[in-house]
Amino acid sequence: MDNFTFYSPTYFAFGKGTEMDAGKYVQKFNGSKVLIHYGSGSVIRSGLLDRIKASLEKVSIPYVELGGVKPNPRSGLVYQGIDLCRKESIDFILAVGGGSAIDSSKAIAAGTVYDGDFWDFYEGKPIEKALPVGIVLTIAAAGSEGSGDSVITKEEGMFKRGASGEAIRPKFSILNPELTQTLPPYQTACGITDILAHLYERYMTNTEEVETTDRMIEGLMLAMIHEGPRVIEDPNNYEARANIMWAGMMAHNNSCGVGRSQDWSSHNIEHELSALYDCAHGAGLAVVMPAVMRYNMRHNIMRFAQVATRVWGCQVDFNNPARTALEGIKAFSDFLTSIGMPKNFKELGAKEEDINKLSHSACFGDVNKGSINGFVTLNEEDVQNIYRMML
Amino acid sequence: MDNFTFYSPTYFAFGKGTEMDAGKYVQKFNGSKVLIHYGSGSVIRSGLLDRIKASLEKVSIPYVELGGVKPNPRSGLVYQGIDLCRKESIDFILAVGGGSAIDSSKAIAAGTVYDGDFWDFYEGKPIEKALPVGIVLTIAAAGSEGSGDSVITKEEGMFKRGASGEAIRPKFSILNPELTQTLPPYQTACGITDILAHLYERYMTNTEEVETTDRMIEGLMLAMIHEGPRVIEDPNNYEARANIMWAGMMAHNNSCGVGRSQDWSSHNIEHELSALYDCAHGAGLAVVMPAVMRYNMRHNIMRFAQVATRVWGCQVDFNNPARTALEGIKAFSDFLTSIGMPKNFKELGAKEEDINKLSHSACFGDVNKGSINGFVTLNEEDVQNIYRMML
Repeated sequence: MDNFTFYSPTYFAFGKGTEMDAGKYVQKFNGSKVLIHYGSGSVIRSGLLDRIKASLEKVSIPYVELGGVKPNPRSGLVYQGIDLCRKESIDFILAVGGGSAIDSSKAIAAGTVYDGDFWDFYEGKPIEKALPVGIVLTIAAAGSEGSGDSVITKEEGMFKRGASGEAIRPKFSILNPELTQTLPPYQTACGITDILAHLYERYMTNTEEVETTDRMIEGLMLAMIHEGPRVIEDPNNYEARANIMWAGMMAHNNSCGVGRSQDWSSHNIEHELSALYDCAHGAGLAVVMPAVMRYNMRHNIMRFAQVATRVWGCQVDFNNPARTALEGIKAFSDFLTSIGMPKNFKELGAKEEDINKLSHSACFGDVNKGSINGFVTLNEEDVQNIYRMML
Repeated sequence: MDNFTFYSPTYFAFGKGTEMDAGKYVQKFNGSKVLIHYGSGSVIRSGLLDRIKASLEKVSIPYVELGGVKPNPRSGLVYQGIDLCRKESIDFILAVGGGSAIDSSKAIAAGTVYDGDFWDFYEGKPIEKALPVGIVLTIAAAGSEGSGDSVITKEEGMFKRGASGEAIRPKFSILNPELTQTLPPYQTACGITDILAHLYERYMTNTEEVETTDRMIEGLMLAMIHEGPRVIEDPNNYEARANIMWAGMMAHNNSCGVGRSQDWSSHNIEHELSALYDCAHGAGLAVVMPAVMRYNMRHNIMRFAQVATRVWGCQVDFNNPARTALEGIKAFSDFLTSIGMPKNFKELGAKEEDINKLSHSACFGDVNKGSINGFVTLNEEDVQNIYRMML
């Protein structure tokens, strides 16, 4: 196990009706004027926004609003948010929504107190400080509610980049599974896929003897495999929603990823797809992950055989563990199909003729310098091959 | 799943050599004068104390020392520590040791800034504030390094009571698995048993549909079952020590225990044993737990069958799941024996003639009002029966 530090000081309030306490938590973390940042009209239509405003009014905390966050949140709105926060002397940002609203809020939080262009952080500049951020989560997926990460799409060129820092880790996150019950099955399944990706990408490690975090990841995967189909079958299943919501946070707060190398290749390769085609991130991952796994499998067959056996219930072929490994990848791929996820470029709306462009952008982004360095080092040709496996 | 809040703001520094940064972390959390609180001479003999002092001197932070913490830490030393902290204007307590040194430090931290008798907190008074506490952990067991809990033995009457509060949650915990390599196998096994108890007592719940936390607990148990025997075989196995150390923290920071009722019966019943006979807490648990399980099994046979199957690899007897449940309890009990833990009163040094006294104290302590309320409500007669099963 590698040396590490772990710090997760977010306060979580979990369960039915907890959004009613949003104002109380803003107060607890010293907010005195709030930007409520959210996405589409669904938080308005559902009455959620009104409940949150009422909770702020109850503790006499003034607020301004900025809606309009889109999936794969854009830099343009972040600049708007920064201007608004400065003009209104905002000292607390309350994100209401899923990963997109949260990531956009984190970007605004860091950008507001920074003299330069906020995009610097997404090109690798460390985030030193930020306004405090609180969350009311409406979809279990990104894990952004318990992480210090944010991903934004730059509109000039349409590419996605990530930034990280303790300063943008949420002060509190309100997790009410009821708020996710109105999500359509497709979006729910995208969330499930994203959570499984966060687990798989921590699982695919080159660090040896990491049994504790392996077992934690496997446990969370098993929970997702149990609860995923239950919630697709019955979107109102509160208990299944609750189990997925907590698993989604645990999958990405990194308690199960510490002390081991991780593999963010699938996220890297997917980001190019959702940036260019504006597809759902989870849907993109569903197409990308099985391809990456099949391409990388030979790098460590026993690791793939292990997850196949422990998570997917495959029998070990002791004479040919590669068969077990492949069986596990197929079981994962079949699972994604069973919850309604796309299988290939076509179903995703991606185009074969873009493969070279996608591969180049994935390998020569602001962070990657010619290759994606994860479980296996993937150069541009490797990435082209992987995209081709998705056709 | 029940509503819950979860807040775990401890900063963890994990890995080789991390104790060299103790001074840096005290500084980070605003300590300006430190009480170093520790147990026996082993931290002196190993040179650990010197390394910690050097790290404090490096950042020019003055300190005083108080050693002498015993296993099952006593109230007497806590009073001494409180006096010392007041006299020396201490503003930070650094615990160097295992659960005992940590729990004693937490008690001193709360008592120093409280006008009354610190024991009030161990009779149920909420802890409102405390001096900040930092940890250098030397045994993986209690999980106190990541929890807001403390257990102290009152010398008048020799009984153990616990206190909890966010204020006594450590600011930082330094977890270097190397520091645990000098532990004798018996103490190592006691730690493994304590960690498994923290997992089992969260697992035995009356809350339904808690798949995510079930799976996390099972995963951590599986890791302990894998790593435990490896470290008993070879005490210098750093990797096994590291896996156990992180599992020990995760087992008790409550991320796998949220939203579900828990069952602290075994800890309650054991505390009477280690208080009266001064046996190791883990050794006491090894004797208590299988008895409690057999006594409680009929309350929910399927839950015991589940852990038997998922963790202990038992085949399900679909015609008679009670057989599976029993097989799982036997597998657990055999595991404890295999790592050198005692099986009964005699091996523990406990006496049959004390059973009535032990049972009465367990059921009528400061917290329990005639019964232990966990997975199953146990009255005095139940507890007597359970103690008798340990003969």
